[in-house]
Amino acid sequence: VYRVTWDVEAAEKGGYEHFMLKEIYEQPKAIKDTLLPRLRKSDEIKLDSIKITVGNIENLKRIYIIACGTAYHAGLLGKDMIEKHTKIPVIAEIASEFRYSEPLIDKETLMIVVSQSGETADTLAALRLAKEKGARVIAVTNVVGSTISREADDVFYTWAGPEIAVASTKAYTTQIVSLALIALDIAIKKGSISNEKYKLILEELKSIPSKIEKVLEDSEEIEKLADILCKKENIFFIGRGIDYHVSREGSLKLKEISYIHSEAMAAGELKHGTLALIQKDTPIIALVTQDKLYDKTVSNIKEVKARGAYVIAVAKEGNTDIEKSVDNVIYIPEIIDEISSLVSIIPLQLLSYYVAYKRGCDIDKPKNLAKSVTVE
Amino acid sequence: VYRVTWDVEAAEKGGYEHFMLKEIYEQPKAIKDTLLPRLRKSDEIKLDSIKITVGNIENLKRIYIIACGTAYHAGLLGKDMIEKHTKIPVIAEIASEFRYSEPLIDKETLMIVVSQSGETADTLAALRLAKEKGARVIAVTNVVGSTISREADDVFYTWAGPEIAVASTKAYTTQIVSLALIALDIAIKKGSISNEKYKLILEELKSIPSKIEKVLEDSEEIEKLADILCKKENIFFIGRGIDYHVSREGSLKLKEISYIHSEAMAAGELKHGTLALIQKDTPIIALVTQDKLYDKTVSNIKEVKARGAYVIAVAKEGNTDIEKSVDNVIYIPEIIDEISSLVSIIPLQLLSYYVAYKRGCDIDKPKNLAKSVTVE
Repeated sequence: VYRVTWDVEAAEKGGYEHFMLKEIYEQPKAIKDTLLPRLRKSDEIKLDSIKITVGNIENLKRIYIIACGTAYHAGLLGKDMIEKHTKIPVIAEIASEFRYSEPLIDKETLMIVVSQSGETADTLAALRLAKEKGARVIAVTNVVGSTISREADDVFYTWAGPEIAVASTKAYTTQIVSLALIALDIAIKKGSISNEKYKLILEELKSIPSKIEKVLEDSEEIEKLADILCKKENIFFIGRGIDYHVSREGSLKLKEISYIHSEAMAAGELKHGTLALIQKDTPIIALVTQDKLYDKTVSNIKEVKARGAYVIAVAKEGNTDIEKSVDNVIYIPEIIDEISSLVSIIPLQLLSYYVAYKRGCDIDKPKNLAKSVTVE
Repeated sequence: VYRVTWDVEAAEKGGYEHFMLKEIYEQPKAIKDTLLPRLRKSDEIKLDSIKITVGNIENLKRIYIIACGTAYHAGLLGKDMIEKHTKIPVIAEIASEFRYSEPLIDKETLMIVVSQSGETADTLAALRLAKEKGARVIAVTNVVGSTISREADDVFYTWAGPEIAVASTKAYTTQIVSLALIALDIAIKKGSISNEKYKLILEELKSIPSKIEKVLEDSEEIEKLADILCKKENIFFIGRGIDYHVSREGSLKLKEISYIHSEAMAAGELKHGTLALIQKDTPIIALVTQDKLYDKTVSNIKEVKARGAYVIAVAKEGNTDIEKSVDNVIYIPEIIDEISSLVSIIPLQLLSYYVAYKRGCDIDKPKNLAKSVTVE
């Protein structure tokens, strides 16, 4: 077992004005700490004490990923990665919905629960329900010795270090890395991913910390955009596929700490209702980082622009033609579609932080919210 | 084949100020027209020309329900009914997301597409993708001869009659009835539902038109509540399980025609972020029609009340103790949890209508929206 010791120092702000900002900047290190100890020199993945054998995998009928809030948003990305590379059906579900929905759980079900604190009440209840019905449960959590870590069959720790701000940042990105490693490990054991693809994704994962650092260095640009957004009371995020999942997390961050009513929409659903709300200067944050969905999302951007929306795009560097269709662009470094979330979320975290800052909000302790939700 | 002939007369407003209101009031008839011709005297269901045999069902690994907008919201309810009663895994997905997600489709997959117009571009594309991969496709649609009805293997028509208003109402409820009939037919053939339960749900379905009429008779109360809501720019809907699905549809209706930024949240997710937005007089519409989730949702209502929210509940008559926890209650007649959506959506449709009316909006033709979305 690889151990990271948490000391008192690490729990302090270390020069940052808020824990949230500190934790945003800690992400390159948190991701390295979560990723590197799990990789052998041969690029074989070592999932700590998780013992998933080829036999276990062959019997799997389905995988549930169960979580709440930000961890659920990481779970949506985990679903895409696991289903795509293993071809096992994966359902990501909100814990408080899942547990009352008479889900199909049996011995051939694997459940992955995701919880930073390891104490989230609804997630814990889902874990217990699964175990009662004979399913195997893997916990992805940040807290050693937490209730969820003790009750799960296997635990995979995110080595993010203590997360103090209520709005989760480094827990989210390390949860995604953890789910990526689980996806790759199952896929390579099952033989459902090629060696080339497997190695490519691992290489890209290793490149994430330096790519995040590059985004963090450009934070001044993002701070400027916050000047515009901080005066708005309604903001929309749009995206398709992985960009949609990241939009949901970006929207949640903004809501939590700035109290702006923001909402994320699957870009393709805009025409089925939300487009009615778009008027002159309505701010839209559009994620367009997926190569294969680029044209489709740009066409949705044109629709909202035609109604006068103010559009900020998050795009990969090199895609400069996006500038023709939007008001502002935040560029992120080139990265493969599968794990773009790990980089594209960074500007959204920074944007939320600066918007809340300019609105004078209590960033680390937003009103009405607790760090870990231990009641139902 | 049972045929309903549509004449020119039927396409006119017949005394109502807007098509939307007319169509809301037509729901008891539309549901009867969709339901009754499919029931034999013996209570056996006759799914028109859909030939689902016991052999087909036994080979089914999974069912996808694919749709956009309001039809997707009906699909979420279909998922719950089909999965619960047949024990076959069902995934409901937005068409524009589904088609680009590398879904697991093969010959042992059944796809149900739902589209009022039968021309929805993304839904049609999903249908074609499924057929290409050898899956069987059932279309639930309202338009005879539409592209989707022609390309699907089987068609089940909602006999809602022409729907003119952009905001869908009677198409939604007849889609739910259609999906309920498909769920019951598969379940009884598979032997996964008891005869008692099967008959109970059919009886309750037959009672829906008169229950809807009762809600429509009380529309004055709802009109009064619209006086309060029409001045708001942000409204939240909350619910759990089926109530959450209906919340999403209620929220979409309001958005589409009143241009108020409304959003539906799974009630159990509030504490994971959105609670930060709740302040004095924030309007919350809380659905509490599910017996088994009643206490849980009431506890969420108390949380938002504690932050000063103005809460309107939709509850079943008899549950008068809800009055202690909220500012207003809209009661609906007693109905079993499984199909409560067919009644609980009615006050939300009326509320949207009256709110939009009082805001002076162009109800039948909301800006930016088209009746059927035939582009991607």
